[in-house]
Amino acid sequence: MKKLLLAALAAFALSPAAAFQVPPDPAALRDAALASDTVAWDLLEGLTTEVGQRMAGTEAEARARDWAVRRLTTLGFANVRIETFDMPVWVRGEERAEIVSPFPQNLVVTALGNSGATPARGIEAEVVHFENVAALEAAPDSAVRGRIVFITHNMRANQDGSGYGPFGAPRRTGPSIASRKGAVGIVIRSIGTDYHRNPHTGVQNFAERVRPIPAGALTIPDAEQLQRILRRGQPVRMRLTLTPRNIGRRQSGNVVAEVPGSDPSAGIIMIGGHIDSWDMGTGAIDNAAGVAITTAAAHRIMQAGTPRRTIRVVLFGAEEVGVFGGTAYFNAHRAEGNVVLVGESDFGADRVWRMTSNLAAGNSALGDRIAALLAPLGIVRGQTRANAGADLGAWASAGVAAIDLNQDGTRYFDYHHTPDDTLDKVDPEQLRQNVAAWTAMLAAAANAPERIEPSGAARTAGQ
Amino acid sequence: MKKLLLAALAAFALSPAAAFQVPPDPAALRDAALASDTVAWDLLEGLTTEVGQRMAGTEAEARARDWAVRRLTTLGFANVRIETFDMPVWVRGEERAEIVSPFPQNLVVTALGNSGATPARGIEAEVVHFENVAALEAAPDSAVRGRIVFITHNMRANQDGSGYGPFGAPRRTGPSIASRKGAVGIVIRSIGTDYHRNPHTGVQNFAERVRPIPAGALTIPDAEQLQRILRRGQPVRMRLTLTPRNIGRRQSGNVVAEVPGSDPSAGIIMIGGHIDSWDMGTGAIDNAAGVAITTAAAHRIMQAGTPRRTIRVVLFGAEEVGVFGGTAYFNAHRAEGNVVLVGESDFGADRVWRMTSNLAAGNSALGDRIAALLAPLGIVRGQTRANAGADLGAWASAGVAAIDLNQDGTRYFDYHHTPDDTLDKVDPEQLRQNVAAWTAMLAAAANAPERIEPSGAARTAGQ
Repeated sequence: MKKLLLAALAAFALSPAAAFQVPPDPAALRDAALASDTVAWDLLEGLTTEVGQRMAGTEAEARARDWAVRRLTTLGFANVRIETFDMPVWVRGEERAEIVSPFPQNLVVTALGNSGATPARGIEAEVVHFENVAALEAAPDSAVRGRIVFITHNMRANQDGSGYGPFGAPRRTGPSIASRKGAVGIVIRSIGTDYHRNPHTGVQNFAERVRPIPAGALTIPDAEQLQRILRRGQPVRMRLTLTPRNIGRRQSGNVVAEVPGSDPSAGIIMIGGHIDSWDMGTGAIDNAAGVAITTAAAHRIMQAGTPRRTIRVVLFGAEEVGVFGGTAYFNAHRAEGNVVLVGESDFGADRVWRMTSNLAAGNSALGDRIAALLAPLGIVRGQTRANAGADLGAWASAGVAAIDLNQDGTRYFDYHHTPDDTLDKVDPEQLRQNVAAWTAMLAAAANAPERIEPSGAARTAGQ
Repeated sequence: MKKLLLAALAAFALSPAAAFQVPPDPAALRDAALASDTVAWDLLEGLTTEVGQRMAGTEAEARARDWAVRRLTTLGFANVRIETFDMPVWVRGEERAEIVSPFPQNLVVTALGNSGATPARGIEAEVVHFENVAALEAAPDSAVRGRIVFITHNMRANQDGSGYGPFGAPRRTGPSIASRKGAVGIVIRSIGTDYHRNPHTGVQNFAERVRPIPAGALTIPDAEQLQRILRRGQPVRMRLTLTPRNIGRRQSGNVVAEVPGSDPSAGIIMIGGHIDSWDMGTGAIDNAAGVAITTAAAHRIMQAGTPRRTIRVVLFGAEEVGVFGGTAYFNAHRAEGNVVLVGESDFGADRVWRMTSNLAAGNSALGDRIAALLAPLGIVRGQTRANAGADLGAWASAGVAAIDLNQDGTRYFDYHHTPDDTLDKVDPEQLRQNVAAWTAMLAAAANAPERIEPSGAARTAGQ
């Protein structure tokens, strides 16, 4: 039976003019997106220009949601809605770092998410340097107490972004370890790969029962300057001023839109990105691009006719500061048991170079068809297991099938979480390649005649 | 006679171990610099690390002079001294630009030199855009009055830096024209060629009887963002806050050092760079590099034995804000009539690609010898006339011979006058090539047996 269906599908794919009820040719949809998509660029340019930064829980993020509802409605999506949730909000204040002695000069710093605050006049202390988190952990408390800890790292740019995990430790765990050991503050070498005077912020959470301390990121040129100064061997004193505030719980929200399918029993394909951004850039690569790519691809499927499966696009709120939107959505909807496939785009706008999945053995033919559709875009098939990104990862962990379209991350950490995350960093041609890849994947998956099975992970979300 | 001397020189040049009184082989000195110079890097790293920014007329610039005196003395230079002068000093204050409507968001701005100040709460006005200075000039005053003028340009990176002249007009003359027409403020697209959120400052002077208005530079991503917002066709209101101050006259100074020559009648060769920098970066390419290159080259000549001509290295103060140091030095010393050749390094640290001169016809052989020494470094001979740079240009204009060693400027305006002008932008290998070129030129010129003649320009400074 499956063989017969596949043969029928192949026949349809060869039909140049897909008639009513005949699934559109995924390859043709792919090639049209690659040649001429403008929807993604318009969305990306619109969100970054007409809203700009959209920090989670702020009125800017609320304007972004309203903007998205207007655009999604205009594009013809169904069931466009906002699902709100509450979350704690932290906002940036004054930010200054100054070498007091032996060589007075200013350094460029920004606060990490959830940083504690200094008094308005700042704090002044001697700087103590550690080459990594392990060195800080190994140090006696007496070497840290009353000082400003400075942690560096050796992150390099990798295509698959794999440096961010291990080399991001100074940001994620450095502040808590430093606080436990009695440091009065911490500055890290920005978790990034560029040499510009734009610091990389990012979230960190103090561990339980750890006193929040001021925690900042120096730009990479500033971090290397501080290392050069320290190498002179004299005590280095820094004045650090960071005055962020926790302003309590505020409303955020997820924006949802759908391309209704013809067969409710076939389950829902859920894709998306996150609509919030950090506050310093305009969040072009992180993550207006993902919003634009997934929306544009779903729109192309809609334009080509009613797919078998409903495609749901979710533009998540409050990802950057703790995946609040993704968590709220999962908790609210997991019991519905109708999501059969998930995938998020949240790694910039450079070309997709690899597809990975967690498809069940019974869906290997579907995986093969998608891989074959992606190969002409230069996309290889990876052997690692898809995780569906931060916002949809809970679904994949719960056993829902997931497909990841991995983007080239070589440049990503040059701009990630910095003021430099702006529209000019996006290459329109690579953006179109992303839309083409998502369009091809969606065309194949939304119209797949076979059942899309749970991945066989520890827990299953049902189908 | 000249022929005989040249033949003798050629013979000496072949001698592997130059004996006392025998001029060292310029090619050997050149190659040694290229292979192994560390003095320039040490100076560059030291000045940018141990002093950092050194805004003209501030205590930081004074610390830079003291630093230079210590280093030049340690290196063995003679007659190391500071010659002070007074100058008006302008210092940066708060800097913010905000789109109030229709799309509220912050832009990154910095004040141009000698900018007027807004009140502490800023000014708010509608933005009016002009594509260049000519369009602003052609506009009726009614289109400008009460508004914030925004001027853009189309500067592109050129190897010879030739974009800076024509495309720098918005900075140099835009503020005065805007003020005359009744603008309440002006923001320009930064005069630069990069896409980073680091604005390019730079000096401008309000024309006589023109009221100073707040004048800032937006980063290039921000300028393009503002253009996109304006293209929506709605009135755009900006709040601009720039609170710089004129703090009156302060002391600056030039640092002078010499490699004494054996023949006082042969005249002095004067080279150098400027020791001041803008306040946002550490002035690595502008112009710790020039300080380092010329000092290191003079030091190499000194180490090789006593040259025929004295080499004087001048590290000028207060170049950025109006060439106060160069002007003070020229006025104080022009009457001495003993300078026969000048050259400044003030265009970064990328490789020298071209040599130009204004040598008199009678010195064509000297020019040929220098060009031949530079060719192995990949340096071509240009046909334009050397101008000796901002600080030494007055000497060239007054008829003193000048040699320019033009550096590759392709990257220069990515960093020029921004926070991004830091040590990491310097390529040590290209820095050594610069030292090699200057060493070769100095070796040939300082020991040239012939008279170095005035260039034949309008006025002659004597010899």
